[in-house]
Amino acid sequence: MADPMWLNPHAVRDALRHEVFAFAVSDPEHIIVRRLADDLSTYFGCRVTADPAAASVVLRVEPGAPPTAEGYRIRRRADTTVVSADTERGLLYGFYALVRGRLAEDNPGDLDVSSRPDQPLRMLNHWDQVDGTVERGYAGESIFFGVPGSNDHAHPPGGFPVRDLDEPFRGDRERIAQYGRFLASIGINAVVLNNVNVRGKGTQLIQLPLLGKVREVADLLAQFGVRTFLSINFAAPKKIGGLSSSDPLDHAVRAWWRTVADAIYHEIPDFGGFLVKADSEGEPGPYEYGRTHADGANMLADALAPHGGLVIWRAFVYNSHQDWRDRATDRARAAYENFKPLAGRFAPNVALQIKFGPIDFQTREPISPLIGQLHATNLIVEFQITAEYLGHQIDVNYPVSQWVEVLRHHTHTEGPGDRTVATIASSDARVTTYVGVAGVPNVGMDDNWTGHALAQANLYGFGRLAWDNSLDAAQILEEWISQTFTGIDDDVRDVLRWILLTSRETYENYTAPLGVGFMVRPHYHYGVSVNGYEYDRWGTYHFADRDGIGVDRTVATGSGFTAQYAPALRHTYEDLATVPDELLLFFHHVPYTHVLHSGKTVIQHIYDTHFDGVDTVQRYRERWASISGRIDPATHANVSERLDRQLENAVEWRDQVNTYFFRMSGVPDLHGRTISA
Amino acid sequence: MADPMWLNPHAVRDALRHEVFAFAVSDPEHIIVRRLADDLSTYFGCRVTADPAAASVVLRVEPGAPPTAEGYRIRRRADTTVVSADTERGLLYGFYALVRGRLAEDNPGDLDVSSRPDQPLRMLNHWDQVDGTVERGYAGESIFFGVPGSNDHAHPPGGFPVRDLDEPFRGDRERIAQYGRFLASIGINAVVLNNVNVRGKGTQLIQLPLLGKVREVADLLAQFGVRTFLSINFAAPKKIGGLSSSDPLDHAVRAWWRTVADAIYHEIPDFGGFLVKADSEGEPGPYEYGRTHADGANMLADALAPHGGLVIWRAFVYNSHQDWRDRATDRARAAYENFKPLAGRFAPNVALQIKFGPIDFQTREPISPLIGQLHATNLIVEFQITAEYLGHQIDVNYPVSQWVEVLRHHTHTEGPGDRTVATIASSDARVTTYVGVAGVPNVGMDDNWTGHALAQANLYGFGRLAWDNSLDAAQILEEWISQTFTGIDDDVRDVLRWILLTSRETYENYTAPLGVGFMVRPHYHYGVSVNGYEYDRWGTYHFADRDGIGVDRTVATGSGFTAQYAPALRHTYEDLATVPDELLLFFHHVPYTHVLHSGKTVIQHIYDTHFDGVDTVQRYRERWASISGRIDPATHANVSERLDRQLENAVEWRDQVNTYFFRMSGVPDLHGRTISA
Repeated sequence: MADPMWLNPHAVRDALRHEVFAFAVSDPEHIIVRRLADDLSTYFGCRVTADPAAASVVLRVEPGAPPTAEGYRIRRRADTTVVSADTERGLLYGFYALVRGRLAEDNPGDLDVSSRPDQPLRMLNHWDQVDGTVERGYAGESIFFGVPGSNDHAHPPGGFPVRDLDEPFRGDRERIAQYGRFLASIGINAVVLNNVNVRGKGTQLIQLPLLGKVREVADLLAQFGVRTFLSINFAAPKKIGGLSSSDPLDHAVRAWWRTVADAIYHEIPDFGGFLVKADSEGEPGPYEYGRTHADGANMLADALAPHGGLVIWRAFVYNSHQDWRDRATDRARAAYENFKPLAGRFAPNVALQIKFGPIDFQTREPISPLIGQLHATNLIVEFQITAEYLGHQIDVNYPVSQWVEVLRHHTHTEGPGDRTVATIASSDARVTTYVGVAGVPNVGMDDNWTGHALAQANLYGFGRLAWDNSLDAAQILEEWISQTFTGIDDDVRDVLRWILLTSRETYENYTAPLGVGFMVRPHYHYGVSVNGYEYDRWGTYHFADRDGIGVDRTVATGSGFTAQYAPALRHTYEDLATVPDELLLFFHHVPYTHVLHSGKTVIQHIYDTHFDGVDTVQRYRERWASISGRIDPATHANVSERLDRQLENAVEWRDQVNTYFFRMSGVPDLHGRTISA
Repeated sequence: MADPMWLNPHAVRDALRHEVFAFAVSDPEHIIVRRLADDLSTYFGCRVTADPAAASVVLRVEPGAPPTAEGYRIRRRADTTVVSADTERGLLYGFYALVRGRLAEDNPGDLDVSSRPDQPLRMLNHWDQVDGTVERGYAGESIFFGVPGSNDHAHPPGGFPVRDLDEPFRGDRERIAQYGRFLASIGINAVVLNNVNVRGKGTQLIQLPLLGKVREVADLLAQFGVRTFLSINFAAPKKIGGLSSSDPLDHAVRAWWRTVADAIYHEIPDFGGFLVKADSEGEPGPYEYGRTHADGANMLADALAPHGGLVIWRAFVYNSHQDWRDRATDRARAAYENFKPLAGRFAPNVALQIKFGPIDFQTREPISPLIGQLHATNLIVEFQITAEYLGHQIDVNYPVSQWVEVLRHHTHTEGPGDRTVATIASSDARVTTYVGVAGVPNVGMDDNWTGHALAQANLYGFGRLAWDNSLDAAQILEEWISQTFTGIDDDVRDVLRWILLTSRETYENYTAPLGVGFMVRPHYHYGVSVNGYEYDRWGTYHFADRDGIGVDRTVATGSGFTAQYAPALRHTYEDLATVPDELLLFFHHVPYTHVLHSGKTVIQHIYDTHFDGVDTVQRYRERWASISGRIDPATHANVSERLDRQLENAVEWRDQVNTYFFRMSGVPDLHGRTISA
């Protein structure tokens, strides 16, 4: 049986062993209620009664009662608990909040808590492909697609799909149901099934017969409060529609999409909508026809609007054929340049999905300057849970603190609300329910779901933070540890907490320094290659020479990217005196001898952090070894094996980065440590 | 129909239109005689008579008459020509010498020439794979293996075989016969059908049923005087023999190989023998059992000896998991260290096959120090005709002058003969017929055989030079042009000659400088990546830092590799005052400001050659365009398209190399040209 992650049914049953549950709902046949009732008794093994008067926990739907929408309230007085919600979905979230509370504390007293989500859309964007592979997936094959029983870990670098399956759907209903349970427990309410790069048979998911299989998955996920979306190929009218054009202003093209949408909603009445990567990294889009992204998105919105569907349009558009000699072009500027002029021009049922940073999910990036500057536009902020640039779930890396920093980041933009990233989507929206956050999940067919067992915390953390933006990374981690490692001793908890909470800094220490980014092996994005992208077409450079390093993005002397920010941030980043150390090389090209706010020179900072990073990984291994036998053996062995590989990786990063910059700069380490030059 | 290369039957018929041929042989049913007679009348369309008295050209086998072995004599007096040879194979070579002569000159006068080959073994080592791909092949799929009709040009970087074919043999007898004709015409007398990396079904070629298909190919090639060899997997006893070991001293293993050999010779009585890559780049070998390479080779020799078969054992053995931090290990030293101690310890029917340079077929390398230091050992010198590091048959590159330089190179070693590379094999042999040269060919299923039409000259040149070591690159080129572009004008010939004869220097100019090698894109080996191998495990480094570049292989301060050479060469290479400029960075690490014998600094040499290289490619394009319409259009278009791609490649090399070293050194170009830094 697959790892139960943070929802071990034995632990849940044990925590709820004194309780008897009853439902008080107007529609006991509602799919969410039926599934929850079934899970309660069958999956968790709890006691359930039909008579609310005989129950110790009553699960009640009270339409119109606060909190509205997806919120819930939990009241406990003496021995009776009432979980109430305005909707069935809210009830589901209330139930899992109860579970969470009970797993965290043994003897609950009276309480009265209520909660509602900070973000209306809390989505996962699967980059799963119809041949069973997962782009940037590090936990085996797709849980949705592929051949039953297959769980290949190969990563074909040359493209996909690599297999053309007659029947692309894996059909593992039990796995999907388990996944749905996980999602419900952390408040995820929408899932895109397939990769934004839609190739081959993936283009056909929007039509029968494959649409029938989509419906089966969608029906199953709906039992857990999850709406299903699909990524589409913008050129579908030409590729599968038999049309000679995919021009968004062409009547035949528009009619084709309407017909497609009608057929989808006939099959799946609660279908969520489309996710679109257009005119990006080789994908087709409206530019081919001289149309704008608004033209493209609005055409799809027009087709979906009669059914209440949403178009999610990605702002990840840049020139991926940049000439490395061209110092005037700056990839960081691309999203703003492409989309800022379109603010307010998207239909009400379009949301623009923006990666949180201006480049691409690096360990350290500033926020995207587009966030907060798109008034009257629905906004979804995109994060990556899967560890593409963060160690491939081989290296331990708990990035929740980065997401917290992003959400709390003040944009200093003009407009209503507090102008932090967390609230801007709601403040600036055309339709306040069409905003939120999206994450690319890190799950696959591996027994433990995420390859590295500790990476389960990242999925958990994403959902929890999406629901409650006021949580911090440490709080979420405590919750996750309590639910996942029930009954562990405090010293074991200390080890888990220390490793995970320091893991992000550790990874940053031994990888690319001071916000410069990349330096990863091309295509794979794991492991070090200082110059791997330096002379390539992707717009990701460090510009190191014998004198200095960094990307000058200032208005004064560089690409002018800083001008895209609101004045307060612009000035902070533009000025060497105020730019934060950790973003120095993202914004400035400086000599190796430049002195950081920390008091160290850049070159000494590079040496010190890289030695420190490796030292810390060595201590991870030691402390992890010390808790052998005190958590479940499979998890311990899994993490031990990953830590061994992480150490190899960290050593290679340390030595290549230090050697590279010693060869370049000629500056010796102040502490005389060995640099292999 | 595929390109006839240098054997256009219409041109041959035309050149021989006044002649009537007759055979004077004791065995008219000899397979070579039968094929030649058939080709004469059917393929070339010449007139043939059964009566020698009525013929103008008599093809005569005279056993025992000089020249012996494979040699031939051509006498012409008045209107009668006699081509005579000691053997049928010699007669075949005599016939093609006659064709060559007639295509070169319109009105032959009297003549009396005789010739015999300088190298007894003139082999091609196909790196063809049973799935139809060709490792390091740039002209489409294998002519021997693959699906009929398929000619994919993909290069799977992740390994092979990528397809498991039920029937690996392509079965294109016409193509193989045409290939045999080409080989006969240039004197090639042995072919290894399959890649030295023997994987998957390739391991089974030595046994029925696949052996039956090998026989069909071998029988066909035998008609052209070509003996067939196979590459074997040293672990075959375990992989396909059902044994628990492949230990060369294990009786069961030895017996298994004898049984295999017996069965092969039962099927193919003139089978050539085995080619073996052992303990190299992941291939299995005797080291696994604590045995020497001599133990491994001699075991196979023992199995083949009763049948007259030969074991060809490759000396390309080095540590392919080197730590880049390890400055003590030097890959260049590996072949000598592994094989020098085994001199004289190989069985008489073993030949050691040594790559001509100490690294791996680079544009510029010194000769292998092993050559001339293996007394009482049969030696085959290995060259690469396929352009792995030489531009993938996209960039024009005629490397024959490099092979000439190698063959004429004086080794200054002790021993009989003149101690040049060309004669050492014969001088130092245990069995003088078991020595020679081998080349990895550049052909595939492309219509023009070699991808780049001008790369046909490289195959032609290899065969001609292998036969006659006194030829030079320019002579061979004139022959090839005369045969391939019959009837062209002198100014067209000038363009062909100029491009091909300067092509090697041009390619060297824009790629890795001064013998340092590599700087190619990892795995692909085409295109520039200055640091592509710098922090990798392959032992191929440039060690550039802000002060200088190059590999110190001296005894005084470096890896000591120079000590492997005989004293005269050792001193030449050890001393900065005498080392040739073009090998400077192969042997020394020097400052960028080091002044070459040419009077330029190293850094200025780098800039100048890289600008020059691109300029020359631009002139290639211009001059090539100028002969449009004056050679066959398909060839002109093919080369035009390649030259466009070559220019792109050269520009990228120039800019990346110049930028890299400008960033490193900080030294500006003396001529103020633009370097994108």
